[in-house]
Amino acid sequence: MTDPKQGPHTHLPFDATFRATFRDLVLWRRDVRRFRTDPVPEKLLDDLIELATHAPSVGFSQPWRFVKVKSTERRRAVWENFAAANAKALENYDGQQRATYAGLKLAGLKEAPIHLAVFSDESSITGSGLGRQTMPETVRYSVVAAIQTLWLAARAEGLGMGWVSILDPAAVTRILDVPSGWTLVAYLDLGWPAEEHLDPELERHHWEARHYTGDLVFER
Amino acid sequence: MTDPKQGPHTHLPFDATFRATFRDLVLWRRDVRRFRTDPVPEKLLDDLIELATHAPSVGFSQPWRFVKVKSTERRRAVWENFAAANAKALENYDGQQRATYAGLKLAGLKEAPIHLAVFSDESSITGSGLGRQTMPETVRYSVVAAIQTLWLAARAEGLGMGWVSILDPAAVTRILDVPSGWTLVAYLDLGWPAEEHLDPELERHHWEARHYTGDLVFER
Repeated sequence: MTDPKQGPHTHLPFDATFRATFRDLVLWRRDVRRFRTDPVPEKLLDDLIELATHAPSVGFSQPWRFVKVKSTERRRAVWENFAAANAKALENYDGQQRATYAGLKLAGLKEAPIHLAVFSDESSITGSGLGRQTMPETVRYSVVAAIQTLWLAARAEGLGMGWVSILDPAAVTRILDVPSGWTLVAYLDLGWPAEEHLDPELERHHWEARHYTGDLVFER
Repeated sequence: MTDPKQGPHTHLPFDATFRATFRDLVLWRRDVRRFRTDPVPEKLLDDLIELATHAPSVGFSQPWRFVKVKSTERRRAVWENFAAANAKALENYDGQQRATYAGLKLAGLKEAPIHLAVFSDESSITGSGLGRQTMPETVRYSVVAAIQTLWLAARAEGLGMGWVSILDPAAVTRILDVPSGWTLVAYLDLGWPAEEHLDPELERHHWEARHYTGDLVFER
């Protein structure tokens, strides 16, 4: 056991094997849109949410609010909102790009057993405003950190997750009838994936290519 | 080896031991503000950034831009910007809360060997706008997902990271002289932590308490 003040590595069990597997986890996390319809245990979902609440939050504000969308009517209304927004988005593309867009599967809302909406409670006084006076957007960013934590934790359980951003956030907020002061950060679907892929759907279908990391790093 | 279409668990090596250690990683990740001053290998930082670029991004837009802030003058200017914003923030608190705030260490910018500014390139056409027409904020959210990935990966290496949000983002953007169209998402400092803690600084110093997860989960 190494004294954490003496060496770069801590006494915690994050060894080379763990780090290599963590890398695999990050690489194999996917935005899943093809789900099997068999159910996910409620306890598993609750455990994943609990772990996600250990994400960082500005001023320890813990602004994340998780809404399990179980009503058939509400789930259908959200799906219809997505379908309308997706049809409208298609209008922005022409020619080959339009054909490619039309062939992409961009959400699995119909099949996924779990719909989970994640909000930021902008009205909460938890944290007493610490750290967010000059960058108030960090409240919503905290919720995103929880979502990425949930995503990785779900993947480690073999569970797939998708983030559906092709929808009208104001309409979805109304559909879900949440307290005023809550901002929709993400609408997620979860379930057991029907396929496993190492490459993103949009890369596989030649919508977009991966950047070389060196092109994304600068010095000042 | 299980067929991924037959069972909840994939053929990937995310077993119970890995999942338990991943949980430890999430729990032991901290916003570190107390750094040792000894250097961090450049190769290690580059590897962490590379892994972070495997975070999800809306429409595979990969909008993250990482700026290593190496100039002594620029680092000092950012620290001065933080100090001014922090002094101003203190004015918002009274009595015991003011005394508590004044006693908190909210950034390690002076000691940390690495300053890393992370921007969102809002002008990039990568991804051709897919997924971000109704929720354009998902571009910046993608950058946050990369930051949380970097944070966990750094922690697995024993490295500490802090997110400094107490600064004027417009001023810091000017100090760093980056292309127009870039939005500052986070100013990070990294280094070997001088201490290890399981509880957040703000919880330890009684600024804020942890919520019970059940209070953060709702059904609709």
